Amino acid sequence: MFVGVDVGGTKILAGAFGPDLTPLACVKTSTQASRGPQAVLNRVVRSVAAVLAEAEADLTQVRGIGVGIPGSIDPASGHVILAVNLGWKDVPVREPLARALGVPVFVENDANVALLGIHEHELRAAPQNVVGVFMGTGIGGALLLNGDLFTGHRHAAGEIGHMIIDLNGPRCSCGRQGCFEALASRNAIFREIRRGVSKGRKTVLTDILGKDLEDLRSGHLRKAIRRGDKLVRDLVHRAAEYTAIALSNVVLLYDPELIVLGGGLIEALGYEMLPIIQRLTGELLPKGSPEPPEIIATGLADNAGIVGAAVFARNRTANFQPGP
Amino acid sequence: MFVGVDVGGTKILAGAFGPDLTPLACVKTSTQASRGPQAVLNRVVRSVAAVLAEAEADLTQVRGIGVGIPGSIDPASGHVILAVNLGWKDVPVREPLARALGVPVFVENDANVALLGIHEHELRAAPQNVVGVFMGTGIGGALLLNGDLFTGHRHAAGEIGHMIIDLNGPRCSCGRQGCFEALASRNAIFREIRRGVSKGRKTVLTDILGKDLEDLRSGHLRKAIRRGDKLVRDLVHRAAEYTAIALSNVVLLYDPELIVLGGGLIEALGYEMLPIIQRLTGELLPKGSPEPPEIIATGLADNAGIVGAAVFARNRTANFQPGP
Repeated sequence: MFVGVDVGGTKILAGAFGPDLTPLACVKTSTQASRGPQAVLNRVVRSVAAVLAEAEADLTQVRGIGVGIPGSIDPASGHVILAVNLGWKDVPVREPLARALGVPVFVENDANVALLGIHEHELRAAPQNVVGVFMGTGIGGALLLNGDLFTGHRHAAGEIGHMIIDLNGPRCSCGRQGCFEALASRNAIFREIRRGVSKGRKTVLTDILGKDLEDLRSGHLRKAIRRGDKLVRDLVHRAAEYTAIALSNVVLLYDPELIVLGGGLIEALGYEMLPIIQRLTGELLPKGSPEPPEIIATGLADNAGIVGAAVFARNRTANFQPGP
Repeated sequence: MFVGVDVGGTKILAGAFGPDLTPLACVKTSTQASRGPQAVLNRVVRSVAAVLAEAEADLTQVRGIGVGIPGSIDPASGHVILAVNLGWKDVPVREPLARALGVPVFVENDANVALLGIHEHELRAAPQNVVGVFMGTGIGGALLLNGDLFTGHRHAAGEIGHMIIDLNGPRCSCGRQGCFEALASRNAIFREIRRGVSKGRKTVLTDILGKDLEDLRSGHLRKAIRRGDKLVRDLVHRAAEYTAIALSNVVLLYDPELIVLGGGLIEALGYEMLPIIQRLTGELLPKGSPEPPEIIATGLADNAGIVGAAVFARNRTANFQPGP
C-alpha cells in the first residue's frame, strides 16, 4: 500500500491506496497552520493513522508515504525551505515523519505531486508538455516539460502564483505586489468580499455567516452565486479574468499542449470560472497566435494532491534502498 | 565557412565565420521592414554577399547559413509564422533564401540562436539552465533547460517580452496590454521620451536631433545621460525597474542558474541599467527566497545573434544530408 498526504494552507487530506493505486480510503482534517510546524506534522501523523484505520490496514502494510507541501522543498534533505502560506521557513519534514511513522517518507512540492498524479493517473502519461495550476488558499504551479517534471536549478521553478501581472496590484502574502495569487486565489476573493461588505455592499453571505463572515469557504461562494448574489459573482468572474491573463502568460512562456487547473477553488467554482478562463485566455493572446492549448479542470478534483503524493511515493520506492 | 545572419526590427547583421567559428567579417545594414518581406529577404541575400566579399570569400566556401528572425518559426517548413516587429505573418524564409544563395539555410527564432551562441561560445556550454533576454526594438526571450534549448509544444516557448506585468499598462505592438516589451524595450523608452517632449519636458535630445526626434537611437540615449539629461535618465532607469520586475518573474517561473541579457539596448545602456536590474531583481523576490541567480550582460554584445546563427548552422549541417 501507499499513502498520499496533501498538506494545504487550510486542510490536510490523506489517502490510502492499493499497490496499483486503487483508492481505499480518504480522511480530511484542518491544518491549523497557526499552531506551528510541529503541530501540523503531528496532525499529518494522526491523519496517516486515521486513513489506515479507515482502510482497515496498518503501517506494516505501507511501502511508502508521499507528502505534498505548498512550498519550496530541498529534495536532498526533505526540508521545507519556504512555505509562505504555512508560515514555515527551513522546516525538516521527511526525517521527523519517517521516525514517527517507521515508513519511508518522500516530500515534494504539492503542485508538483498533483501534476504528477494527474499526468500518470488521469492523462495516462500521454501529453509531454503540461502546466498545472492549482488554485486554493494560494496558487501553486507545476511544470511537466518534455515528459518530465521540471523543477529548475534549485528545485524552485513553476511558481506561477507569484508571477506579477499587475505591478500596482494588491500586496501578496509573499511580500510582492500584484502576484497572480494576490488577485485570483481564494484568499484574494475573500479579501475583496470583506472589503465590499465593509463598504456596505450587500451579499447573502452575511445572511448565511453573519456580518464578520467567519468560516467563509469556497462552497459558500458557490451557494451565494446560485442564489443570485451579484457581489460574489462579480468577484469570482474577476478572479477568472485575472486567471486568464496569468494563463495567457503561461502559454507564451512555456508553450504547453495542455493546461490543467485544480485546487479547492476550481473544484467549488470551476463551473463558473472555467468557461471565462477558456474563452478569455485565447482572446488575450497576441494577434495572429495559433490556437491556444486546451485548458481543463482535473477530473481528480481535490484528490489530485493525494493521488499524486501516492504516485510519487510509489515511483520513489521503486528505486528505494533503505540505508545500512 | 559558416554565415550567421541576425534580422532585427531595425538592422540586419551578417557575420562570416571560419569552420571553428573564428569571426572573419561582419556587415550591417538597415532592415527597412516597412518595404515588406520580399525586400527584407533581398537585403539578407545582399548582406550575405557583402560579408563574404568583406571576408574575401564566396558562396562555394560556405557550408551553411543560419538566420535568426524575431518571431515564431515553423522549424519543419522554415516559415516565419508571426513576426510582429517585422509585420510578417506566414512568410517562407528558408526556401527562398536557399534558392537565391545555393547553400543550405537554417532559420530559427533570433533569441534562440543568440542564446545558443552565448551558451556554446561564451559560456563553454557549462550552465544547464539559462534564460536569455534580448532587449532591442522589441524584447525576445530564449530558454536553455536541462542543457538544451527548450521551445515548447509548438516551438513558441520563452516569449518573455510578451509576458503581461502591468495589466493596466500601455498597449503593446502585439495587441496585449502591459507586456514587458511595451514597458522596457527601446520602442517603449522612445515612446515615453516623445510623450515627455510633447508635454514640454526638456531634453538634450531635441538639441541633437531636432524637435521631431527623427533617427533616435539607443546611442543617443547614452549620450544624453552622459550630458546629465534628467528625462532620459529617469526613463532608462524606469525601464531597468520594469526589467527587474520581469526578471523576478523569470526567476520564479524557470528557476535558472543564470540570466543573460543582450540586445542593442543592453549594449548601449547596460552600464546604466544592469546595476539597477541586478539589485532590484533580488529585492523583488519573495521574502525568504534563496539568492537570485547571476544576471550578466553577454560579452558577445550585439554579435550574439550572428555568432548564434553561425553555431546553429554548424550544428545543423553536422547532421545535414542534401535531398535526393
